[in-house]
Amino acid sequence: MTTDIFFQIVTPDEALARLFEHLSAVWPSERIGLDVALGRVTTTPLTAPEDSPAFARSAMDGYAVRAADTYGASEGLPAFLTVDGEVPMGAAAERPLQPGTAQLIHTGGMLPPAADAVVMVEYTQPVDETSVEVLRPAAPGQHVIQAGEDLAAGDALLPAGHQLRAQDLGVLAALGITEIEAAIRPVVGVLSSGDEIVPADAQPAPGQVRDVNAVTLAALACQAGAEVREFGVAPDDRTELERLARAAQDACDLVVISAGSSVSTRDMTADVIGSLGQPGILAHGIAVKPGKPTIVAAADGKPVFGLPGNPVSAMVVFGLVVVPTIRRLLGAGPADGPPRRRARLSRSLASQTGRIDFVPAALQQRDDEWWATPVLGPSNLIATLVRSSGLIRIPLDAGGLPKGAWVDVEPF
Amino acid sequence: MTTDIFFQIVTPDEALARLFEHLSAVWPSERIGLDVALGRVTTTPLTAPEDSPAFARSAMDGYAVRAADTYGASEGLPAFLTVDGEVPMGAAAERPLQPGTAQLIHTGGMLPPAADAVVMVEYTQPVDETSVEVLRPAAPGQHVIQAGEDLAAGDALLPAGHQLRAQDLGVLAALGITEIEAAIRPVVGVLSSGDEIVPADAQPAPGQVRDVNAVTLAALACQAGAEVREFGVAPDDRTELERLARAAQDACDLVVISAGSSVSTRDMTADVIGSLGQPGILAHGIAVKPGKPTIVAAADGKPVFGLPGNPVSAMVVFGLVVVPTIRRLLGAGPADGPPRRRARLSRSLASQTGRIDFVPAALQQRDDEWWATPVLGPSNLIATLVRSSGLIRIPLDAGGLPKGAWVDVEPF
Repeated sequence: MTTDIFFQIVTPDEALARLFEHLSAVWPSERIGLDVALGRVTTTPLTAPEDSPAFARSAMDGYAVRAADTYGASEGLPAFLTVDGEVPMGAAAERPLQPGTAQLIHTGGMLPPAADAVVMVEYTQPVDETSVEVLRPAAPGQHVIQAGEDLAAGDALLPAGHQLRAQDLGVLAALGITEIEAAIRPVVGVLSSGDEIVPADAQPAPGQVRDVNAVTLAALACQAGAEVREFGVAPDDRTELERLARAAQDACDLVVISAGSSVSTRDMTADVIGSLGQPGILAHGIAVKPGKPTIVAAADGKPVFGLPGNPVSAMVVFGLVVVPTIRRLLGAGPADGPPRRRARLSRSLASQTGRIDFVPAALQQRDDEWWATPVLGPSNLIATLVRSSGLIRIPLDAGGLPKGAWVDVEPF
Repeated sequence: MTTDIFFQIVTPDEALARLFEHLSAVWPSERIGLDVALGRVTTTPLTAPEDSPAFARSAMDGYAVRAADTYGASEGLPAFLTVDGEVPMGAAAERPLQPGTAQLIHTGGMLPPAADAVVMVEYTQPVDETSVEVLRPAAPGQHVIQAGEDLAAGDALLPAGHQLRAQDLGVLAALGITEIEAAIRPVVGVLSSGDEIVPADAQPAPGQVRDVNAVTLAALACQAGAEVREFGVAPDDRTELERLARAAQDACDLVVISAGSSVSTRDMTADVIGSLGQPGILAHGIAVKPGKPTIVAAADGKPVFGLPGNPVSAMVVFGLVVVPTIRRLLGAGPADGPPRRRARLSRSLASQTGRIDFVPAALQQRDDEWWATPVLGPSNLIATLVRSSGLIRIPLDAGGLPKGAWVDVEPF
């Protein structure tokens, strides 16, 4: 059993540090095509299999020249070169460049053998159909991308644990890499508990409400790169809750139980989570508002979370502890954190040091500045969810904030 | 035909303003389930179909009381109430609260008839199994969420043109809305041109390179909410390019042609785009670096874009003009723009007023500050794509920026 020392309120980072000690560092991968690789995470470092470009290319429209033929050229005393045809696009430039000649070349064209520079068309003057004046000297290598200058065979492309962006796919395609090893998406099991909760498609009887968290948390898990399996709503019955929780644990890689809002349901949920496997509960309560009544556990190698029933709390905690755990399973390492919008507070905000406060806020742009208006009122109102577009984060060691203060607002 | 006035360099906003004049304001919608609605765009305003909560609920664990029974209560002189059982969770509280009594109630429980307040359990003291002392007075309505207090039937939930977030789905679920009308995802046709370009799965012959842009732009279009159809690579042959462009125009709602890098290919692409329909080219050149050689056109009601072949340029322009057009088709209105990270410049940057400059940059966190290091070198190198994680935006009217200056960095 877990000892009492664990049942203290800890920071989200401390809770994650405890959890990650109990997770395997190895995660399975699968081979996937680039067309489905956006947002997936690499499991091996990727290197360039070949030089890019594979041949010296022109970076400009102009003439391929021998730089030495243009030394000293100026508008007053141009270099006179014979035009020896045109380099075809998309084909090998096979005809070597003879001294005293130039070949017309297009951006991206292959530099002919013996050419070592490109003169931009703007710095040339046609004389007749077969000759051209060069008005500026070209240095060797000018306007040429050398073979392997962009990427040389063996160059590092992307590290393991990298979440693939649109441009990464383009670079892989450019190098002929059309399949990669990607971390298999972890399966997140989502379960709600509480006698008063019914599924979204049910008609609640008096005293019942529909489940807000299952669909919200499922969507957040997908956004974080996981697959989702839903396990419905467990009543306030220990046997049934444990049965559903074990089913989720067996079928999934990570389990999220969103507990009902009453203390008795939360206590029962904690009891069940603690019984699922070793070592059990690692943190019971985190120093975050809203989100304090959170349970972080490891059960025989699988992370299990007990989230508050309050939807705003559940979302805040999901972002703080579940998303980093999904990323950890994917081998993706911690994210940089979401880009935040700098905004000014439209009213003062109280806070308490020693915990991280998150305040839902509506964002408005006035002139060139963004303003954040806290959406106050009981945090268990669902209207808060649709009226907010950001979360103001007040750090662990900060007290309140005055009206007009600049704050960082995370997307919400 | 378009007149010469159009062939001036315009800002991205002006190019979009011209384009949007020629697009229909009506876009088809379809009925979809909440499970596939994340990121989709509403086409009708959504209102609450019922009160939420449907009944007065307790916001705390404690006792349902008649507030009048607790007036004047204090630790020294508590109010003495008979405990008349417990309100069941998830069921109607049917037994009216008698004067001088209290009913045990849990957070989320239904307030019994005639009760008008909840006393937190912390402010009570059990006397025996059937009576309790209340140590503080309760005001009427205290710790009660009234029926319809959260959302009343008819209250606005979400406007038309709203891109659905995780929490929006939760709120819709809570209100029993399990299907919504969403804008049909527009189909974006992606086509590359240039004799030197071969598809990613081909082995390039000398002088050829693989297509970077098709896979990159397809991924960006998906991220923006569109579906994608790929039309391959057209050679530098007017007839073939026009055939493929018309096929894309017929099959898709928006066409993106990423032109080869040579001037002749770009000119041919412009010629084909201009011939696809009325009114034709609306902007030829935008005041953005990189990305100047961009074509914005409307052909018989469908937007057509000619993007630069350079991958960094193509990505920048895609974000500036194609993404807002996809959003316009979806009825989503302009986005707020991506959240930007505030970072300091690790070296000075030159810029020119009169155009928007975008500089790819690598972001590093040092202590508590983010620093942006411009990834310089020829902008046509694909290595730039993997080495950058952000785009520094230097506004239209700004000159250069000194080392250490604060800049806004968009995700890249």
